[in-house]
Amino acid sequence: MIQMSLIQIDNYGPWTVTPAPRTESDLQILQAELYADVQRQIAAKKGLVFYTRFDNMLAVTNGLNKEDHMRIQRSIRNRYPITISIGVGAAETPYEAQKLATEALQIKGGAQSKERKEILAIDSLVKEEESYVQIAHIDINGVTESMTDIVPAFDTNFLVNKAQHYLMTKLIEKGALLFFIGGDNFMSPCNGLDSEELLNIIEELKEEINIAHKAGIGRSNNAEDAAYLADLGLEEIRNGGNEEIICLLEDDKVPKDQT
Amino acid sequence: MIQMSLIQIDNYGPWTVTPAPRTESDLQILQAELYADVQRQIAAKKGLVFYTRFDNMLAVTNGLNKEDHMRIQRSIRNRYPITISIGVGAAETPYEAQKLATEALQIKGGAQSKERKEILAIDSLVKEEESYVQIAHIDINGVTESMTDIVPAFDTNFLVNKAQHYLMTKLIEKGALLFFIGGDNFMSPCNGLDSEELLNIIEELKEEINIAHKAGIGRSNNAEDAAYLADLGLEEIRNGGNEEIICLLEDDKVPKDQT
Amino acid sequence: MIQMSLIQIDNYGPWTVTPAPRTESDLQILQAELYADVQRQIAAKKGLVFYTRFDNMLAVTNGLNKEDHMRIQRSIRNRYPITISIGVGAAETPYEAQKLATEALQIKGGAQSKERKEILAIDSLVKEEESYVQIAHIDINGVTESMTDIVPAFDTNFLVNKAQHYLMTKLIEKGALLFFIGGDNFMSPCNGLDSEELLNIIEELKEEINIAHKAGIGRSNNAEDAAYLADLGLEEIRNGGNEEIICLLEDDKVPKDQT
Amino acid sequence: MIQMSLIQIDNYGPWTVTPAPRTESDLQILQAELYADVQRQIAAKKGLVFYTRFDNMLAVTNGLNKEDHMRIQRSIRNRYPITISIGVGAAETPYEAQKLATEALQIKGGAQSKERKEILAIDSLVKEEESYVQIAHIDINGVTESMTDIVPAFDTNFLVNKAQHYLMTKLIEKGALLFFIGGDNFMSPCNGLDSEELLNIIEELKEEINIAHKAGIGRSNNAEDAAYLADLGLEEIRNGGNEEIICLLEDDKVPKDQT
Repeated sequence: MIQMSLIQIDNYGPWTVTPAPRTESDLQILQAELYADVQRQIAAKKGLVFYTRFDNMLAVTNGLNKEDHMRIQRSIRNRYPITISIGVGAAETPYEAQKLATEALQIKGGAQSKERKEILAIDSLVKEEESYVQIAHIDINGVTESMTDIVPAFDTNFLVNKAQHYLMTKLIEKGALLFFIGGDNFMSPCNGLDSEELLNIIEELKEEINIAHKAGIGRSNNAEDAAYLADLGLEEIRNGGNEEIICLLEDDKVPKDQT
Repeated sequence: MIQMSLIQIDNYGPWTVTPAPRTESDLQILQAELYADVQRQIAAKKGLVFYTRFDNMLAVTNGLNKEDHMRIQRSIRNRYPITISIGVGAAETPYEAQKLATEALQIKGGAQSKERKEILAIDSLVKEEESYVQIAHIDINGVTESMTDIVPAFDTNFLVNKAQHYLMTKLIEKGALLFFIGGDNFMSPCNGLDSEELLNIIEELKEEINIAHKAGIGRSNNAEDAAYLADLGLEEIRNGGNEEIICLLEDDKVPKDQT
Repeated sequence: MIQMSLIQIDNYGPWTVTPAPRTESDLQILQAELYADVQRQIAAKKGLVFYTRFDNMLAVTNGLNKEDHMRIQRSIRNRYPITISIGVGAAETPYEAQKLATEALQIKGGAQSKERKEILAIDSLVKEEESYVQIAHIDINGVTESMTDIVPAFDTNFLVNKAQHYLMTKLIEKGALLFFIGGDNFMSPCNGLDSEELLNIIEELKEEINIAHKAGIGRSNNAEDAAYLADLGLEEIRNGGNEEIICLLEDDKVPKDQT
Repeated sequence: MIQMSLIQIDNYGPWTVTPAPRTESDLQILQAELYADVQRQIAAKKGLVFYTRFDNMLAVTNGLNKEDHMRIQRSIRNRYPITISIGVGAAETPYEAQKLATEALQIKGGAQSKERKEILAIDSLVKEEESYVQIAHIDINGVTESMTDIVPAFDTNFLVNKAQHYLMTKLIEKGALLFFIGGDNFMSPCNGLDSEELLNIIEELKEEINIAHKAGIGRSNNAEDAAYLADLGLEEIRNGGNEEIICLLEDDKVPKDQT
């Protein structure tokens, strides 16, 4: 099972314009630093956060318990002008897990409620022996050569965003999520998605929007190791001259019933 | 005229996997902190950076000269394990400006070239008296009520990404750029786009993908003040109960020939 | 027993002047951020770092094992232009522990050696059941009223530095360390120092340099909880109108043979 | 003339223990990041900040006007849980300048007043043509060889602190300030102190406490360039095998009446 946490800044929208709109550069710095900060704390326990919408961040948090989440909330309260609420859910697929996490938090009040502050709403936590994370690291073939070094920067950005949109559309149907992680790279927490299905998606995209992807898939009992194995998988594909499209690697921490 | 800078990490892709893939959380922290850092330095001169693809960032840099760009490069070299190259261009539209910035840099070598390091390639700089920035702050109507507080977090994320993709597609045709800035908010450097054209785009999107936007537009001689006026415009629309879709504000620093 | 780690930037002095002296503000930012960063990672395991000389930082690291230290080294290598070596030692007193940590590292090469890089030299680690940390939080009585709000800022700074120097001189004789933590506050890891001894030191200082201190002492099996109890002790003294000079608090995690 | 700013966190002491003592590691991170942040903003205008007591920081701010100071206050308010007040003063010596800065601020209310918040109290600003900064970069001879690589880390720390205390004592009598900047390095804003006087101080210290120093002195119209020239001076001494004790360098931006 995969455990996901939804980290939401409390009452952020209204705060950004009180008493007058706050300087945009300050907000951008605040958001980026908050993300880096939460990442550092969640990574200390081998979890992984995606910046998502910045005011709402989704994280794979297998290995983090209630106290770990409370420590993060406390440290943010002590160092930022805002506070964060967190919902946590565990399920067979990432989509289902973030759904439970969201619902647990929504019940406690709205994101722009003045009353709701620093809530920790845990629907469910993954038990150690059931902990299982599958992550795919997907990138676009040859972006640097065919785009970055040739066309205007925004055109490359546009293409990457287009790829993201189509990848998301297809993956969400399979219960998998997709996050942009910089460059031409995406990460997809995707418990339950098999290699064949991901291969089909990549082939469909090649045909439909003419963008070629490849993917390393990693499996472990935590996000950090799964992501690392996915990275290694991608390296193997590159080393093989991109002849393969998918490479799956797993370690011995994967629960028996998942192998 | 608008001045844009393309900030590109030198040889970043290869670095992230040398000697072995670097821990994903470390890369995410590095990227977010680099963005926050560059933002802080560019904002000190009233510019504004968008994280774009993190390894390639686009910035509106009216008011920053050659020495300002060099200081940023030096400070990054002194505090990060990587270096950055920068291309700068000035033009009537943001699209054209970033195109010139990109080309100036591409001529100096590839993004993954081992030889190219800390290049500053200036195609053109905006003269003080011609400095003009128009920025639109676009958001989605009622996301918190209709999405964040009701549906799973990833569904909201998906919708925002969809809106981004369609907005980008339409704006790029008009020479305007679009960047996600968190929550349900986008910023569009859009010199040369008039209110009517933006209104049409927003109305088309309402029809085509059933997502309703509104937009404040700000005009000044620098990005910070233009963005602030755009924020104020958006506040005016909100205060008027979202009856208007567009609100344009400008200050007396706009060059005469643009008013 | 207390466990201490010496965190040393590798070959830092030469780096700061290669190829030419690096901008002082950049070095100051680098050092402060490195400290904040290491603090965040060590605090995730309830340790506590003192900035010491910035290029050499001392930390109380009860609860951190070999892997924890290696993770910190890796994360710094991935995000900074420098690397760090670490020595670790465990002993009955903090002075003895940092001595062992230093010696373990010195054997591996000099701080300005070009060969020594990212060494982890562990002399000894504290066993969980023997883990014991005593920390005193010492402040100066009435600095805000008698100094900050009345005399020039540098005079207050001078007085605080003077207090630090004399406190250090006396504490080091007892095997205790002393670190400035901001304002008029000091923290002293001081396993083995009893309340009576600290009281004597404070009374001597009152007489010799006419500066009055008070101290909360905390005891636990880790630095975070010991420091928190010391803070609470100081609050109790303040609540009692500063009539007491010392207040000692401990929790039930203190090993039996230490109570 | 030199311009100095006193940057003071508003009502910080009470905040750190409200409602209960805040986690020490969080406070340390907050303080270090605030310092790095303010440094980055002041350095953008070629000023230089010293961390001083962290809740009270002293900065050389020649070149920064009223608006520059207000921008810093705003950016801190937007991104931290605390606010800062600033006093600014200009004078012939650094001691006198920080005295004026402190007094300007003290008049507006106490550091722990609940009423005083985000005050900018300017006693005086340096005019561009009178702007003059002299900074000495002082270090201890051979610390790495004779201490860092041989004795316990805290003993080296103790020696450096001792040197600082004695240097401060002597410099303050000459109207000069002294700040520790890491390693075995100090920076002394010292307008009005001539080389001969500094040489005497260094020779006295060698005799009295048996610690040998050397110093580069730099002069310009701003802190950044003065500090850089001081660095170069120190390098010259090192390159000459430490035969000289003082090396003074100045650029052509030094006002005529000071050369």
